Amino acid sequence: MSSLLRRLGSATAPLRLVTAATITKQVALAPTFSRLSVAQTNRAYSSGKKLTEEDVKVFREILKEAGPVSVLTDSADVEGFNEDWMRKFRGQSQLVLKPKTTQQVSEILKYANQRQLAVVTQGGNTGLVGGSVPVFDEIVLSTSNMNSIQSFDETAGILTCQAGCILEVLDGWLAEKGYAMPLDLGAKGTCQIGGNVATNAGGLRLLRYGSLHGTVLSMEIVKADGTIMKLGQPLRKDNTGYDLKHLFIGSEGTLGVITSVSILTPRKPTAVNVAVLALPDFAAVQKAFKLARTNLTEILSAFEFWDSACASLVLTHIANARNPFDSEAPHPFYVLIETSGSNTEHDTEKLSAYLDTLFESSVATDGVLAESETQRQQLWAFRESIPEACAKDGAGGNLKYDISVPVEQIYEIVPVMRKRLEAKGLYDAIENVGEKRTGRVVGFGHFGDGNLHLNITGAAWDKDVEDTVEPFVYEWVQSNDGSISAEHGLGVMKAPYIGYSKSPEAVAAMHEIKKMWDPKGILNPYKFLPSN
Amino acid sequence: MSSLLRRLGSATAPLRLVTAATITKQVALAPTFSRLSVAQTNRAYSSGKKLTEEDVKVFREILKEAGPVSVLTDSADVEGFNEDWMRKFRGQSQLVLKPKTTQQVSEILKYANQRQLAVVTQGGNTGLVGGSVPVFDEIVLSTSNMNSIQSFDETAGILTCQAGCILEVLDGWLAEKGYAMPLDLGAKGTCQIGGNVATNAGGLRLLRYGSLHGTVLSMEIVKADGTIMKLGQPLRKDNTGYDLKHLFIGSEGTLGVITSVSILTPRKPTAVNVAVLALPDFAAVQKAFKLARTNLTEILSAFEFWDSACASLVLTHIANARNPFDSEAPHPFYVLIETSGSNTEHDTEKLSAYLDTLFESSVATDGVLAESETQRQQLWAFRESIPEACAKDGAGGNLKYDISVPVEQIYEIVPVMRKRLEAKGLYDAIENVGEKRTGRVVGFGHFGDGNLHLNITGAAWDKDVEDTVEPFVYEWVQSNDGSISAEHGLGVMKAPYIGYSKSPEAVAAMHEIKKMWDPKGILNPYKFLPSN
Ligand SMILES: Cc1cc2nc3c(=O)[nH]c(=O)nc-3n(C[C@H](O)[C@H](O)[C@H](O)COP(=O)(O)OP(=O)(O)OC[C@H]3O[C@@H](n4cnc5c(N)ncnc54)[C@H](O)[C@@H]3O)c2cc1C
Ligand SMILES: Cc1cc2nc3c(=O)[nH]c(=O)nc-3n(C[C@H](O)[C@H](O)[C@H](O)COP(=O)(O)OP(=O)(O)OC[C@H]3O[C@@H](n4cnc5c(N)ncnc54)[C@H](O)[C@@H]3O)c2cc1C
Repeated sequence: MSSLLRRLGSATAPLRLVTAATITKQVALAPTFSRLSVAQTNRAYSSGKKLTEEDVKVFREILKEAGPVSVLTDSADVEGFNEDWMRKFRGQSQLVLKPKTTQQVSEILKYANQRQLAVVTQGGNTGLVGGSVPVFDEIVLSTSNMNSIQSFDETAGILTCQAGCILEVLDGWLAEKGYAMPLDLGAKGTCQIGGNVATNAGGLRLLRYGSLHGTVLSMEIVKADGTIMKLGQPLRKDNTGYDLKHLFIGSEGTLGVITSVSILTPRKPTAVNVAVLALPDFAAVQKAFKLARTNLTEILSAFEFWDSACASLVLTHIANARNPFDSEAPHPFYVLIETSGSNTEHDTEKLSAYLDTLFESSVATDGVLAESETQRQQLWAFRESIPEACAKDGAGGNLKYDISVPVEQIYEIVPVMRKRLEAKGLYDAIENVGEKRTGRVVGFGHFGDGNLHLNITGAAWDKDVEDTVEPFVYEWVQSNDGSISAEHGLGVMKAPYIGYSKSPEAVAAMHEIKKMWDPKGILNPYKFLPSN
Repeated sequence: MSSLLRRLGSATAPLRLVTAATITKQVALAPTFSRLSVAQTNRAYSSGKKLTEEDVKVFREILKEAGPVSVLTDSADVEGFNEDWMRKFRGQSQLVLKPKTTQQVSEILKYANQRQLAVVTQGGNTGLVGGSVPVFDEIVLSTSNMNSIQSFDETAGILTCQAGCILEVLDGWLAEKGYAMPLDLGAKGTCQIGGNVATNAGGLRLLRYGSLHGTVLSMEIVKADGTIMKLGQPLRKDNTGYDLKHLFIGSEGTLGVITSVSILTPRKPTAVNVAVLALPDFAAVQKAFKLARTNLTEILSAFEFWDSACASLVLTHIANARNPFDSEAPHPFYVLIETSGSNTEHDTEKLSAYLDTLFESSVATDGVLAESETQRQQLWAFRESIPEACAKDGAGGNLKYDISVPVEQIYEIVPVMRKRLEAKGLYDAIENVGEKRTGRVVGFGHFGDGNLHLNITGAAWDKDVEDTVEPFVYEWVQSNDGSISAEHGLGVMKAPYIGYSKSPEAVAAMHEIKKMWDPKGILNPYKFLPSN
């Protein structure tokens, strides 16, 4: 395998190998700016009622079987649940409840609904739109104690588990049985399957295994009034009635609490390859993707990309990060290609032929191929540390946009945004961070899914910069028939902007559903839908 | 390729090849019994208002741009729209409307809703649960004239087209561009993409490409009151609000008219293999499937199965059908395995290794492998002609159940049902068709999806037989955590039985949605949901 690939490399452009343990993965808290989230909220659905001592007593009674730490009221204990992963949104909740069973969730909601007490469900608290933390003093319902695996059908590969199971734990558990979770993301060590489903998380395997709308087979949820709804069975096919579970996939805790999920899991691939390539321009990235669809068809499992600005951010801000291409000048674009299959020899042959084509036609100018699991993880770590590098750039003021547009246009917004900021004197050049108010405008993301993460870094949050960027970025997305939130959801951050991606009729229909199943608006208020 | 596979076969069990043009595929009208559908209907949602001359004038005005044959009132013209594919359900509609545009559909519904005139949307009219034809005198809204392809994104493989496009036409159009539809079914020459989406059709490629909930990206629909709703964009990822389109996938015309669909299409595989194997017992089928998941992982595209009774029905009733295993005694079980990939050599190697394992461990006792496209089609035709053979057996009285249960239990109901009928003196043996009132009890289906088609044939519709089978079959499915309709939907036939597969809370929630968006109940009344 390696000799074949070395030959390829030396015949055209040098293919060198990353050495072990030079790139480490760090998922740290991003020290971003903190604005009062209240300003961004809306009051379409609000609770209003104040929590009393009596309420806490009732919840203690409901959770008396759930263990000693199932009701948190001490402010030190509660603190972490009030702040989001980005340290950007902070609430003032005084009560965290940690039920163990669906029945307990049901009793909690039934009481909260009667009393009109607002509740925010929190999974791993890794969401990136401020959806998982209270805006004011909502009760936090944490699913962390709902973490048992309920069943696994080894013939069909169907896993059923409680919502609080951590993604990485599930993936590890399945690996022993020869299966894998159909989704993967940088937050896997912390995020929970319930949170993944509630946000319809995309991530790194979507290109291969599709979205959760295709892989989630059934669900158990609790509605605002405490009603437990079983939605389907752990079956691959079931056409009996409206498929209601899909309303809860991506509903961000506003329509019900997901307590259990059945999900279809693929066989764990036994052959995995990861390569990072350097490309001369964006047209080359497009070409490389088209060729990958043709040549790697059934084994292509990821096609990620980033620009030279991202690469330089990682090299600047991430401790131990190492340029896979050594000390040379940066390349305009990079792609990470992963193949997953069941036969190493076959996959290597397909990948070699593909790389041959890329180098012979000068679509790619340089490349490295991992030759061990450690090296594969290193290449992935480089890609996965880009968000953290953005957060660290200029020590603050990182504006993040998670957009999707038709694949052909996916990168256009980056140069457009640079020019726009430049025209207002707010952007200079990559080299001059700190001199101007904007640091860098960078683009990276899940190319194969048409999903770009546009990041604008800066020394501190800057109203002029934000006003130059917003709502322009949303208008641009709208005029290109895109989505203002490809995978992160709306939360508190983007709720007011849904109209840029959804028609007024569709938004009105969403409000109707919300009002029907949560008439008092106790579930995750001030988020997801705009005030009308 | 062939020599390799011949070696395999001769080393263990003989692998012989089917010869050209011996098995033909016929999709004929099934001469099944015809009961008055009214008995099976419910009155939860009804219209009640009678169509007038004035109404027809209004519709003519709305459709004046849609061409001369867009309003049918002549009984000879209307007749075909009143009867379903199985000739089992018949309505008495006097008006068929054939709009060309979404705007026209909107105007039709707006008027019908005001007047409280009921409307049944009809696509290709191939549905198998009586959902596509009127029960009484509902207006038929046919989508046949809404058949234009609107756009195709060649990088992402996203097709957008009107609802009336025929599945096979779309597949052919895509083939020229190197893409394929992610679904395939026996009715492809007639069924329409709108009907596929409205029934959430499963079919023959689901094992590989997943359900329409994963591949349909966006939709345009018209609600009962004429409101046009654009649900999403032709994008792979979009997490902005509740994903309403999923409510319409599988809603069988009861919630809105689907006018346009965007769907993600895979690359057309350039290497396809089809083999039919004979197996000694059901445990062997299970083993063969598990091994296929491991050895053929990313190239496995179909794993269909049938029992010896199905094989004998095809050989008896289908003109020109030929036993792929020549004249030998029937085998207890058969499976059809298809692989689809991008590299013939690789796929053949994987398949050979897989077949080797099966024969060496006596999981399979015989097998044939197609060596040309014609032979592949012949093998598929044998599998696809089973429903027709069932319909022809005993010239009537074919009871059809489309169930899914966990894969381990998928075949259990067949022997259980035989015994049950035998105990009541209603079933004898496969050889004695016509002597007893039941002909055969057979099982076949999409094994990989846990989807069994249970068929009970008979000389004529027989109340005793039906009462012995129903509701027992639904109770059995329920007690095995299955679905009473894996892929065909509920229509008029199974609406009353939804409770066997969905919880009362879920059914109540469905009624709430129906009432919210179709308060007058004009869309496909008497179907889908039971009366409450
Ligand atoms: C380093 C990093 C990388 C990431 N990469 C990706 C990526 O590649 N793709 C992607 O899509 N996202 C990504 N994310 C975002 C985030 O991880 C995902 O959205 C994740 O799915 C959230 O899961 P969680 O358990 O942390 O949910 P939380 O953050 O706790 O909650 C998220 C939302 O879901 C609701 N919720 C949580 N659990 C439930 C439940 N059981 N029932 C009902 N509602 C519930 C919450 O109320 C909130 O609105 C990333 C985040 C980080 C920090
Ligand atoms: C030979 C044969 C083989 C089959 N094989 C399979 C199979 O393998 N898998 C499978 O799942 N099914 C199968 N079917 C069933 C059937 O073909 C599918 O359900 C198909 O998807 C129906 O499409 P259609 O256009 O004929 O819809 P129709 O039969 O016209 O309508 C079906 C339902 O959808 C509604 N509908 C149709 N178009 C619209 C629209 N635009 N908007 C709103 N509602 C609409 C109708 O009101 C009706 O309730 C088979 C049928 C036959 C005859």
